[in-house]
Amino acid sequence: MSLVVMKFGGSSLANADKMKRVAERIIIKKKSGNKVIAVVSAPGDTTDDLIKMADKITCNPSIREMDMLLATGEMISISLLAMTIGAMGEKVISMTGPQAGILANDDYTRARIREINPQKINDQLAKDNIVIVAGFQALNSIGDVTTLGRGGSDLTAVALAAALKSDSCEIYSDVEGVYTTDPRFVKDAKKIDYISYDEMLEMAGSGSQVLQSRSIEVAKKFNVEIHSRSTFSENEGTIITSEEKIKGKKMESFSISGISFDKNQVKFTISVLDAPDIVAKIFSHCSKVGIIIDMLSQSVSNKTNIISFVVNRSDIKKTQEELDKITSDYRVSISCDKHVAKVSIIGVGIKSHGIVAAKMFETLHKSNIGINMVSISEIKISCIINESDVLKALEEIHKEFGLSKK
Amino acid sequence: MSLVVMKFGGSSLANADKMKRVAERIIIKKKSGNKVIAVVSAPGDTTDDLIKMADKITCNPSIREMDMLLATGEMISISLLAMTIGAMGEKVISMTGPQAGILANDDYTRARIREINPQKINDQLAKDNIVIVAGFQALNSIGDVTTLGRGGSDLTAVALAAALKSDSCEIYSDVEGVYTTDPRFVKDAKKIDYISYDEMLEMAGSGSQVLQSRSIEVAKKFNVEIHSRSTFSENEGTIITSEEKIKGKKMESFSISGISFDKNQVKFTISVLDAPDIVAKIFSHCSKVGIIIDMLSQSVSNKTNIISFVVNRSDIKKTQEELDKITSDYRVSISCDKHVAKVSIIGVGIKSHGIVAAKMFETLHKSNIGINMVSISEIKISCIINESDVLKALEEIHKEFGLSKK
Repeated sequence: MSLVVMKFGGSSLANADKMKRVAERIIIKKKSGNKVIAVVSAPGDTTDDLIKMADKITCNPSIREMDMLLATGEMISISLLAMTIGAMGEKVISMTGPQAGILANDDYTRARIREINPQKINDQLAKDNIVIVAGFQALNSIGDVTTLGRGGSDLTAVALAAALKSDSCEIYSDVEGVYTTDPRFVKDAKKIDYISYDEMLEMAGSGSQVLQSRSIEVAKKFNVEIHSRSTFSENEGTIITSEEKIKGKKMESFSISGISFDKNQVKFTISVLDAPDIVAKIFSHCSKVGIIIDMLSQSVSNKTNIISFVVNRSDIKKTQEELDKITSDYRVSISCDKHVAKVSIIGVGIKSHGIVAAKMFETLHKSNIGINMVSISEIKISCIINESDVLKALEEIHKEFGLSKK
Repeated sequence: MSLVVMKFGGSSLANADKMKRVAERIIIKKKSGNKVIAVVSAPGDTTDDLIKMADKITCNPSIREMDMLLATGEMISISLLAMTIGAMGEKVISMTGPQAGILANDDYTRARIREINPQKINDQLAKDNIVIVAGFQALNSIGDVTTLGRGGSDLTAVALAAALKSDSCEIYSDVEGVYTTDPRFVKDAKKIDYISYDEMLEMAGSGSQVLQSRSIEVAKKFNVEIHSRSTFSENEGTIITSEEKIKGKKMESFSISGISFDKNQVKFTISVLDAPDIVAKIFSHCSKVGIIIDMLSQSVSNKTNIISFVVNRSDIKKTQEELDKITSDYRVSISCDKHVAKVSIIGVGIKSHGIVAAKMFETLHKSNIGINMVSISEIKISCIINESDVLKALEEIHKEFGLSKK
């Protein structure tokens, strides 16, 4: 008998009808002779609605109380889904994150899973129950509920799959899998059959919303094979697994897996005199308050450091504040370009095949799209461009690299 | 330093503005030099909304899952209220029922509190925190969340007041206290300053919605004085306490405290031949499925038993089913009058002063209101009348017994 972890996102649970479809999929899996754990997110827009409630009260809520509030969303999903499955005649039990033995550290709103105590889940599976687990939430050392950050339900699913050594981990959403680029913007985008953890990490980090990055990191660490697929179709989705397992299937020396983009970017540029340690300071201050610096370039001329870097748009204010603190003792000018975007090509072996970068730059150039900044890693090339050029860039690159369906 | 338990109902927490007023009241209490525990219900119509969600899925949900679902309502209240108080600069922490150490038996949806382990609450009070506790919910022996039945937040407040030996237990709602009858229907209704536990129990059991009956039973058992008052005014409300404490204030040999009514009543009448044990069977069958039989009369002539009794309107279908089972082997006719109501006069010493009953019957008679059934206890006289006569009966009795304001 196999153990399967299935995870369903909020859009698959937005109303009673959708919940029934999810219940049917779970029951079919159970009746095919599997033990089933289903991890669920909050239904529809519930999490956003809860955040709005808190916003009406204060712009700076206690993070402990925020987690207490947000955890209710997934509790609504688990109880309603368990009722649905129960009404269809199957044995089922719901569990909150704490009840499911998911233990985390004390960082409210972005807790990290410390360990999983699977005793209670195993007891219920042994009693032939389908077990519905609330994603996104965990118990900390002092008995409080904590949440795992946006997309945390993916993490719950992968962590459970790792801890319980499940035979498969299926992440269901309203898309068919991972695409060469976002099919809402590029109609020709193609579904990818197999993608490695590292490539998927780059896709996620570059703005593709299919899977949360931390869940992929954990999947990689514990070698959990993820099947990303649609709640509403029977088609095979995308398998995210190790490079070795994929190798047989990709005969070329390198291959482009996909193109991702992220429009929520802003670029800061600082010009500062006589401050050789300024980059170190920027990094240390920003990391302390949770700002992630994505690309950074530096040039020095005549003792003037010119530093540019990119952060997420939601961090503009915090970044501005930190820069003001850091540079208060210097002669400095700070500017911020709020309308930039990042476009990335992802594929194993991309760096060692300079032709890819060349072709990307050439394509952008031909399309009259200016390149603001560039970064190249083993498996990704990213360009910062103007936000208004994103769609054009996506289409041209997608076409030029032969990723389209035909 | 005194310890005060304050309880706020859902209508006092229906939006951010109302929540701020509640927060202010709590903070004032704290700043007057008290330790404060605030027990809260789910905001506004949240509980009803959650029940509707479940209704869309199945008419017969798992009761364990129902409790998992309903418990989220109070979690929303505690977190939002704690944020509100925190934003006003006070130290505050929220706790679910399980976190607050409220332990109950395993009867889902109507659990009874077994004991309270006040360790965690005491720790937080010692740290000078205002403690916000989710009403209505508890932890059972196998680690599930259970709920305490409708109005269960009152019970949470009184039980905490008893367990922590608080100096006062204030139950806030949108009315000013307990009235001689429902002021929405009788404009002249007068607020009662003091009422005994027993009288209050009769008021509650007779349809007055101010306080849940079980909470009054617990208050009586542990001698917790309850102050029922309004969230939105500074006026003194009604003190519910022991008869002895009130005695000095009531000089008459007896006094009427109030008039209550309940329109959600139905009357069953059964006529059955040769069935001397039929009443016993009705009671045992109904109690097994949780139907409460309120009044019962029986007459026998020519071996024919005629039995009438009253149940809550929501139990019509269940009662019908049980009666069908019980009487399947007899020659029987069953009828049900769906439009009856109960009007009750409540006052200590009422039974020993026959004049009260006489005056009540006379008043109804003068007003052309037929009396269907009667029951008299030590402190209550109840009449079953036609539903359409309720308002008239209320007004006339209220006037006749001199309960009006002037």
